[in-house]
Amino acid sequence: MVQGSFPPPAFASAQDRSALYADLASWLGNRFSQAPALREQHGHTLTWIENQPPDAVAFPQSTDEVVRIVKLCAQVRVPIVAFGAGTSLEGHLNAPYGGLALDFAQMDRILRVNAEDMDCEVEAGVKRKALNTHLRDTGLFFPVDPGADATLGGMAATRASGTCAVRYGTMRENVMNVTAVLASGEVIKTGQRARKSAAGYDLTRLIVGSEGTLGIITQLTLRLYGIPEAVVAAVCPFAALEGACKATAAAIQLGLGVARIELLDALQVRICNVYSKLTLPEVPTLFLEFHGTPAATEEQVKIFSDLAEANGGGPLSYTANPEERAKLWAARHDVYWAQRAYAPGKSAYVTDICVPISNLAACVKETEADIEELGLTVPVVGHVGDGNFHAVPLVDMSDADEVRRAKIFADRMTGRALSFEGTCTGEHGIGQGKKTYLAAEAGAGIEAMRAIKQALDPCCILNPGKII
Amino acid sequence: MVQGSFPPPAFASAQDRSALYADLASWLGNRFSQAPALREQHGHTLTWIENQPPDAVAFPQSTDEVVRIVKLCAQVRVPIVAFGAGTSLEGHLNAPYGGLALDFAQMDRILRVNAEDMDCEVEAGVKRKALNTHLRDTGLFFPVDPGADATLGGMAATRASGTCAVRYGTMRENVMNVTAVLASGEVIKTGQRARKSAAGYDLTRLIVGSEGTLGIITQLTLRLYGIPEAVVAAVCPFAALEGACKATAAAIQLGLGVARIELLDALQVRICNVYSKLTLPEVPTLFLEFHGTPAATEEQVKIFSDLAEANGGGPLSYTANPEERAKLWAARHDVYWAQRAYAPGKSAYVTDICVPISNLAACVKETEADIEELGLTVPVVGHVGDGNFHAVPLVDMSDADEVRRAKIFADRMTGRALSFEGTCTGEHGIGQGKKTYLAAEAGAGIEAMRAIKQALDPCCILNPGKII
Repeated sequence: MVQGSFPPPAFASAQDRSALYADLASWLGNRFSQAPALREQHGHTLTWIENQPPDAVAFPQSTDEVVRIVKLCAQVRVPIVAFGAGTSLEGHLNAPYGGLALDFAQMDRILRVNAEDMDCEVEAGVKRKALNTHLRDTGLFFPVDPGADATLGGMAATRASGTCAVRYGTMRENVMNVTAVLASGEVIKTGQRARKSAAGYDLTRLIVGSEGTLGIITQLTLRLYGIPEAVVAAVCPFAALEGACKATAAAIQLGLGVARIELLDALQVRICNVYSKLTLPEVPTLFLEFHGTPAATEEQVKIFSDLAEANGGGPLSYTANPEERAKLWAARHDVYWAQRAYAPGKSAYVTDICVPISNLAACVKETEADIEELGLTVPVVGHVGDGNFHAVPLVDMSDADEVRRAKIFADRMTGRALSFEGTCTGEHGIGQGKKTYLAAEAGAGIEAMRAIKQALDPCCILNPGKII
Repeated sequence: MVQGSFPPPAFASAQDRSALYADLASWLGNRFSQAPALREQHGHTLTWIENQPPDAVAFPQSTDEVVRIVKLCAQVRVPIVAFGAGTSLEGHLNAPYGGLALDFAQMDRILRVNAEDMDCEVEAGVKRKALNTHLRDTGLFFPVDPGADATLGGMAATRASGTCAVRYGTMRENVMNVTAVLASGEVIKTGQRARKSAAGYDLTRLIVGSEGTLGIITQLTLRLYGIPEAVVAAVCPFAALEGACKATAAAIQLGLGVARIELLDALQVRICNVYSKLTLPEVPTLFLEFHGTPAATEEQVKIFSDLAEANGGGPLSYTANPEERAKLWAARHDVYWAQRAYAPGKSAYVTDICVPISNLAACVKETEADIEELGLTVPVVGHVGDGNFHAVPLVDMSDADEVRRAKIFADRMTGRALSFEGTCTGEHGIGQGKKTYLAAEAGAGIEAMRAIKQALDPCCILNPGKII
């Protein structure tokens, strides 16, 4: 087992980098740039972590081009950071050792839709909304929905999930295989289109969630689902967060099959009212969605309504009107921007814990007490059907004391997640922001991860400084 | 990336082995044995591959004991083969380099059932039927059902699936975390009890399906499901295999949510009639099961009945009677023994391909032509809802020509699987039997697997000679 710190000390000298970038510029023309604004954009993603721009940005158009770029970078040890839509939250795309950002914006072809098999093959730069627009006529859709209009390659790399995971699973369950370029320049395709396989190590699941540190995803095959006959959205206010959590747990335990079940605390509802022009009562609230036949969704609404009432909630209001549904989910998807707008100049110090559903109510209750004690402004929002929620201190990063308190808050969140048998990140990943938390959570597993990283990327050129 | 062949040449000398076994005998007492019959039993599993017994068998009772044994074996490079119930089919448990079989029969405690979270924690030696018996009062069940009464540790190690995978997924989806002892003797727990996590590399999915070559599973946490309110089993005859496949594909594409959908060709039905005392018409037949509310299962039966009729099938007969259901599934689960009884003295040269559902009918049709051409006795049986089926030449292993034809048949099956974008093994795994097929299927991925193996088990003491 490999011990010791990553990355290894020596990346390319300034001179070697310059020579490489000159080569890339002459080969790629206007698909290569060292313009400061572009570099800054590629280091600066949706995170409170400080910007660390790459030296340069390249826009490959094929797996073969990625192979050639990786081989050139590997020769002189220049770091490579694969870049999708830049919507990750934990500094995954920062370039602490400089190097090259590989932006997949020009690899956005939908290669094939196999409607009969309910799967499709796409390039890594395809965005999820574009895919669903493309699929509309087939009666199929891709359900993983992290809110942001992320690329599917980026979503796979970070094991994204979001609002629909409670019913349809995360990228872990919905990526059937990936084509990835390894640090050696070798291309692997990690599986076929069969629904299951017992053929060797599960390289698909190893690459999914590895945040660009083990291989660069260039294509992927995704599972699709039939668009449900009926879709009903609902909003349900509660007297207390705890009651909303308990109603959620009851629904999950009952196997209600809800497609979305999202918690917003009173502050988050207020923030959404302002930003998204809603008029909801400013109390703890669940946003829900039910998928099925008209009869089944009607039954689900009825059952959930009863569960809410038994836990200090209601009345539940619901709608099958597409515009009203769209407005509700747009508000949910915009919470990050709504939070930023609510506290201008402040950063969103996002936390992301996930616990067993039976521990959710207690965990949220302790979190509320912490918010009170630390005197922070912290909206709470979450995919509670999975036991996953975000408490988001809005922090002036130039106010040392506020930053200190936010750090204490985040540390306690992680400790609480572990004490409730949960994880420090349900969906946002490790990036730079959660490396110490991962170490606490994974224990000896960290050494196994390090050994795998060392085996597949011995010079640590793939997204160095992330995860381990 | 590591190149070259595995395992490395040098395992322990006979002298070092003897010294180790003497130590183990004095420590473990009657939980250690070198009795020939026991050794043979541990090398001889359900496979056509020749028996290669281990030197000795040990029965650990705790993770700590496994750690101590692994460390002792690692010191002198003695191979370790983790052994569950011995029901694998591809020579996973053969000991080509001798060494120690670790039999988990005495690690069979159900540690905890978390009914509210619908999960449970078990030791690796718990068998699936014992778990479901234990769970009965909770209203929950564990759905992965490979037929054999395998251990849950063994099922995780081989990424088992079986009849219910079409609805509930395989071990890949239903193992939440494992506790595993690595070759170094380090213990990793690969996850928490949260339903999802984005915390680092997916070590759970890496260990699941690694066939004891990356770590020895000692405990695992499993997802559970509510026992459905209504369970209806059905039998549906078809004029041709192709029609049965097409009806299956139609049901999957419709999202019918069938819980089991099993194909038997005419020969397999005849074999089952004889062995399990059934009186089914000896034609291609689907065995099905529907789970849900009484109304939902009734609707499913009706819809499937129509699909069958449209594809040359029917009439469908069905029952909710528990005894009749049990008899049907017992017959399905006993096909391996029924095949062996049908052709006394012959071995079952099992194949196990899995293809996209839209290619299933064509794939089965080509397989039928091969059976005809090669003059073999080959029952066909499969989990066709996943696109997974087994064509099983019954072969006299002392008849060189029959073996040759069976080998041609199996090779063609794999080639066909790949040409139909499928896999050489849907559920049985690689073991010794499918190493060359894996190499063809995984391409450059094999080198990545080898690098991972080398990183986690550099002396190759964990189940050497398997997968890669």
